[in-house]
Amino acid sequence: MTAFGFELLGQDGKARRGCITTAHGTIETPAFMPVGTAGTVKGLQPQEVAATGAEIILGNTYHLMLRPGAERVARLGGLHEFMRWPGPLLTDSGGFQVMSLTELRRLTEEGVTFRSHIDGSYHTLTPERAIEIQQLLDSDIAMVLDECTPYPADHETAESSMELSMRWARRCKEAFVERPGYGLFGIVQGSVYPDLRERSAAALIEIGFPGYAIGGLAVGEGQEQMLETIEATEPFLPADKPRYLMGVGKPDDIVKAVLRGVDMFDCVLPTRSGRTGQAFTSRGPVNIRNARHQDDPRPLDDETSSPVSGYSRAYLHHLFKANEMLGPILLTLQNLCFYQRMMARLRLAVEERRIEAEAEALFAEQARGDIPVLS
Amino acid sequence: MTAFGFELLGQDGKARRGCITTAHGTIETPAFMPVGTAGTVKGLQPQEVAATGAEIILGNTYHLMLRPGAERVARLGGLHEFMRWPGPLLTDSGGFQVMSLTELRRLTEEGVTFRSHIDGSYHTLTPERAIEIQQLLDSDIAMVLDECTPYPADHETAESSMELSMRWARRCKEAFVERPGYGLFGIVQGSVYPDLRERSAAALIEIGFPGYAIGGLAVGEGQEQMLETIEATEPFLPADKPRYLMGVGKPDDIVKAVLRGVDMFDCVLPTRSGRTGQAFTSRGPVNIRNARHQDDPRPLDDETSSPVSGYSRAYLHHLFKANEMLGPILLTLQNLCFYQRMMARLRLAVEERRIEAEAEALFAEQARGDIPVLS
Repeated sequence: MTAFGFELLGQDGKARRGCITTAHGTIETPAFMPVGTAGTVKGLQPQEVAATGAEIILGNTYHLMLRPGAERVARLGGLHEFMRWPGPLLTDSGGFQVMSLTELRRLTEEGVTFRSHIDGSYHTLTPERAIEIQQLLDSDIAMVLDECTPYPADHETAESSMELSMRWARRCKEAFVERPGYGLFGIVQGSVYPDLRERSAAALIEIGFPGYAIGGLAVGEGQEQMLETIEATEPFLPADKPRYLMGVGKPDDIVKAVLRGVDMFDCVLPTRSGRTGQAFTSRGPVNIRNARHQDDPRPLDDETSSPVSGYSRAYLHHLFKANEMLGPILLTLQNLCFYQRMMARLRLAVEERRIEAEAEALFAEQARGDIPVLS
Repeated sequence: MTAFGFELLGQDGKARRGCITTAHGTIETPAFMPVGTAGTVKGLQPQEVAATGAEIILGNTYHLMLRPGAERVARLGGLHEFMRWPGPLLTDSGGFQVMSLTELRRLTEEGVTFRSHIDGSYHTLTPERAIEIQQLLDSDIAMVLDECTPYPADHETAESSMELSMRWARRCKEAFVERPGYGLFGIVQGSVYPDLRERSAAALIEIGFPGYAIGGLAVGEGQEQMLETIEATEPFLPADKPRYLMGVGKPDDIVKAVLRGVDMFDCVLPTRSGRTGQAFTSRGPVNIRNARHQDDPRPLDDETSSPVSGYSRAYLHHLFKANEMLGPILLTLQNLCFYQRMMARLRLAVEERRIEAEAEALFAEQARGDIPVLS
């Protein structure tokens, strides 16, 4: 049996190069986790996701508990078997989606009661149930149930919210049934207040987790405050455990967070943007729906090798104009390839102790802007 | 340069085994052509279509002329290059979609004027323009512009409609610029009237084409009348040219038409049905949206090897209930694999002169019905 673990392989400034070991395989860090909300990274088969370089997929507890249901997934052999993803899986706790997707929710010390956005049925998520669901799903990395403090929040609100999350974190830890290769991560809260972030980190370390997430960011505070909050939190996180910045982000958010010591990321941006026609390329974002591409025989991005490299911009443009499914599929592939290639470059740069230069190179590449229109 | 041609490799009763040679490769017949309306078989990359066993894709002139436009496709290197399908392509003439998709159309001796269903713009399709468009698209097999006679039609209406189509067929032949490896097929019309079908076939043979389609069927006449019409037409078609039954059909339609001497088929059924949750399997159709599948860990069809074989019915059901793109993608793959496997079996059976027995075996397999629900 494989023990859950993290090995710090190298460091360059604050930036870290590591490897997480789980029951279903290893994850080289810094790592980006594509979001597979309802048991699928939208539009792709699992082997296509793996071919982009992804080693771990994130599943959403909220969606999966409502449909198809955690007990059903368990009967079917767990989420890996269900979606045919043999590698590591991380699930969130469901708390964030309860707050953002449902109405008529009621938050108490015990947990949160809410109505499903699918069929209006009532459900309750407690720390204990959030853990039970994630263990039914068989996720390699489970997350504690927390209250994602709204932004902005005054110090008093942020403090009481953080304290509730810490009490819930303890209940989650107690409910979590330890198995080799499986881990539960704590989540630091405290809004943008350094003193609360420090206290939250200390409270979680006191409970003890094999990994720590920084939660409650990327909720509207802006990049500057986000980075300041990471800087205020990071010194209080143990060096020998992975750090996961939840829900982040744009390419430069990720690069800057890696420079500040973060190891793991997830975000819907590459997949969701891909479905609406926004491509991430080595020269920055490209909106393929723009008419400038309609006669362009060139590839979208001649510097990111991806399954999309062989198609012309004109064809990709046409697919989106004609509402063809293949458009979202191909741009999702492009964007995941772009993100994974960026992560691979960051990992190599930390190993070779040139992360600052690599970050500057990435920023400079992105700042070039798209290739000129063909005349 | 490869000459366009057809070789009759074998025969068993009326059923034929052949091979069509085109500029972009060969097509073993009897053949099923997946429909790639707007330059894509919906949801699949070209290499995935090829992996199902398909050797030729059908493109719709009507859709492509409106968007992205035939001249644009030509500037981009033709439809093969545009959609990255290196194999043979067949395009229809656009006439059928003009009749079925547009309003405010006006049919004259010269051609048909209509408004685009996309943006309401006016367009005219004449025999000459239909050929020009298909040659701009660079399709290996072009089709003459015809009037798809509505069903039902009385003898007089069917006769004058057929005669118009024959005059258009001659204009198409005159407009078609011969190139090695490229061919133009005539289309037999005449509704369900054997005398008109015979006259139409004779008129086309008089003009001379490297292949002949049977058009104006699968428009509501029912299988029995369709088969009778094929039987009434087939004796008047030259044995040394391929015969293409347009827009057909369900699996048993295809088997029965192969028994009656047809070589080529196209139909949206496997792809369109797949997108709505209907699977074709070796035990007949299965509606994966049915609740009976929600806890079923078994594969959809354990007799048709396809990229879908590894997924459970429960997972496929979940994808459709959750409106996940991967559901339509996977069922499209299943259905195309089912169709192509059926065609491969028919080809082999003709070679081995046991087509009647194979047809009976296919009907018996389909009649078994789906596997029982797990208790």
